Amino acid sequence: MNDRRLFSAHVAMIGAGQLARMTQQAAVDLSIHLNVLAATDLDPAVVAGAHHRLGDPLDSDAVYGIGQTADVTTLDHELVSNDGLSRLEASGHVVAPSAKALRFAQDKAFARSELARLGFPVPNFARDVDSSDVSTFAHEFGWPVVLKAATMGYDGRGVEIVADDPAAASVLERGGGWIVEEMLDLQIELAVLVARRRGGETVTYPVVETVQIDGICRELVMPARVGQATRDAATALALEVVEAVDATGIVAVELFLTEDDELLINELAMRPHNSGHATIEAAETSQFHNHLRACLDWPLGSTRLITGGAAMVNLLGSGSDDAAMRNLPSALAVEGASIHLYAKEERPGRKIGHVTALGEDPEDALATARRAVAALEGRP
Amino acid sequence: MNDRRLFSAHVAMIGAGQLARMTQQAAVDLSIHLNVLAATDLDPAVVAGAHHRLGDPLDSDAVYGIGQTADVTTLDHELVSNDGLSRLEASGHVVAPSAKALRFAQDKAFARSELARLGFPVPNFARDVDSSDVSTFAHEFGWPVVLKAATMGYDGRGVEIVADDPAAASVLERGGGWIVEEMLDLQIELAVLVARRRGGETVTYPVVETVQIDGICRELVMPARVGQATRDAATALALEVVEAVDATGIVAVELFLTEDDELLINELAMRPHNSGHATIEAAETSQFHNHLRACLDWPLGSTRLITGGAAMVNLLGSGSDDAAMRNLPSALAVEGASIHLYAKEERPGRKIGHVTALGEDPEDALATARRAVAALEGRP
Repeated sequence: MNDRRLFSAHVAMIGAGQLARMTQQAAVDLSIHLNVLAATDLDPAVVAGAHHRLGDPLDSDAVYGIGQTADVTTLDHELVSNDGLSRLEASGHVVAPSAKALRFAQDKAFARSELARLGFPVPNFARDVDSSDVSTFAHEFGWPVVLKAATMGYDGRGVEIVADDPAAASVLERGGGWIVEEMLDLQIELAVLVARRRGGETVTYPVVETVQIDGICRELVMPARVGQATRDAATALALEVVEAVDATGIVAVELFLTEDDELLINELAMRPHNSGHATIEAAETSQFHNHLRACLDWPLGSTRLITGGAAMVNLLGSGSDDAAMRNLPSALAVEGASIHLYAKEERPGRKIGHVTALGEDPEDALATARRAVAALEGRP
Repeated sequence: MNDRRLFSAHVAMIGAGQLARMTQQAAVDLSIHLNVLAATDLDPAVVAGAHHRLGDPLDSDAVYGIGQTADVTTLDHELVSNDGLSRLEASGHVVAPSAKALRFAQDKAFARSELARLGFPVPNFARDVDSSDVSTFAHEFGWPVVLKAATMGYDGRGVEIVADDPAAASVLERGGGWIVEEMLDLQIELAVLVARRRGGETVTYPVVETVQIDGICRELVMPARVGQATRDAATALALEVVEAVDATGIVAVELFLTEDDELLINELAMRPHNSGHATIEAAETSQFHNHLRACLDWPLGSTRLITGGAAMVNLLGSGSDDAAMRNLPSALAVEGASIHLYAKEERPGRKIGHVTALGEDPEDALATARRAVAALEGRP
């Protein structure tokens, strides 16, 4: 089916989770052939009908292999073989983001130090720490402190708040590289999605407010309920970062807004991102469409909101195997809720879907999305 | 993959064209397993990743077979084996629409006479006509008259305007059953989409104005630019018809609005319909989502428009094999245009995609959609 009459382009995507699944839905609109590197043939994007190869995203040959027949190779998540991407680039294939840019999303120690070196505002931190470094750091910035695994963390894994030396030591003895970070007094967490083409053209989505619980994004409101000056500053900062790291495709710039109204860069994700899910219904162009367009170096679509605002609530797995599937019809009775299920087996705390609701009033939209999530979970 | 943990429901769809393709995109949102009966494995829905079986929609056994493992069997088009659907129903399987209701969309002669008998307003007509019947009819209602093949017509095929007896005779000698219909002075053509569950719950979309050229729907504007009274009357009429024929799923009721402000029923389509494509972007729930929900007897979604209005323009195939694919990047530069390509080989006049644009002002939206279609066609 490698047919120019049927497909406008060929995109390879490393990983086949829900982000690849929603990218597949967007790819269908534009008749793009999306080929995902999947761990199993029950991965969410494969179940949604994306073309696929089975392979390990951390296997250099698997990554190198799937990129051979694609116009561009991109990512569903960042836990991928950077070597495979580098080899693709070295052999003249396009990768979005580039292997070089991707380090900013893969390696927190590298990202923090490099962004600090470039003059970007980041939380106070120290990298490659041992117990005595943590102790020294806490002496300066106070307990508790935050320990973050330098690599391989996601959805709150590899992030620990520790209140004293023994607690720190027990985290560090798990091994791997760790950074220590000051515990901030936050007003709110924000995210700015930027789409960027190789040629440099960028668009930004309205600033999103995210609510994290146990390190997992649970809810978001778009646009964020902060003043216009803060929104403008966040957008400008995100654009500067994305250009500085020379990323392409969608980049999610996650920001802390401290009690002192200071914006600090938390982390970068270089792929469609949970904080952009509401763009499917709420924006003129969804993040998934714009990711494909940016990766292919095609003109980017308008990021304007169609409505005054939107809210999204993630659906996490319960103990039951099929609660969400069983409860779907009753959840559909919640008027104004747009439900997305990822065809993932339920495990407690695993993201298995999300619900978006539109509305001028973010509280109303949030209430609608929460009602539908409660119905999916079988809660009253 | 017949797994209750991965899928909320199993839907079989006879036919695998663009309507099944866009239904597949909606099915992914709700984790519905969509299994299409496809003529080839390059049919648009198959290319988009729907599960499929190969078979002829007019083959009773193929239709009966694919419905065996589905919660409900539905349609991408009406040129299907009614016998296969009847056998499914007789063996306790759910079919939406029912084989009985479907006759109203399959057989124009039956639909016209039955709707007239039920007291619904239809154009003056005569069925099962020979040359002398046409002559008599034209004597009463005047030349030209419209000849319509009773069955198997679509997109203008099987519809002929004839101005005299010899022209009529040359159409009739093609064989098959024909109806003759008065040539109406039309203000405009309208369509009302109704979604209806087995239990009787219905929702209606805002009335759409369609522009037909050579019998093919080319453009639409939603809501239709007619007065509120006409919109209300069209909606009420559509609801009455759908209930009278006891259809389930999406039904498109196509209406004529005559120069005398009379609303007449043109025809019924019992499946997602071209006149509803703008609902993907413009309505809170798309026709494809509501079709699945109605077929499965699940609560229907809100049909409210998210914006003031929308316009859609169909993209027809050109002489070139891959003009639309080649021109896609330049068409994406048209801001505000949502492009849908169906992965169909281009043949002159064949529907291969559509473009939707949103906007308060229908003229602006129409201009945007037309610009993108022109770009896809490679016109200046």
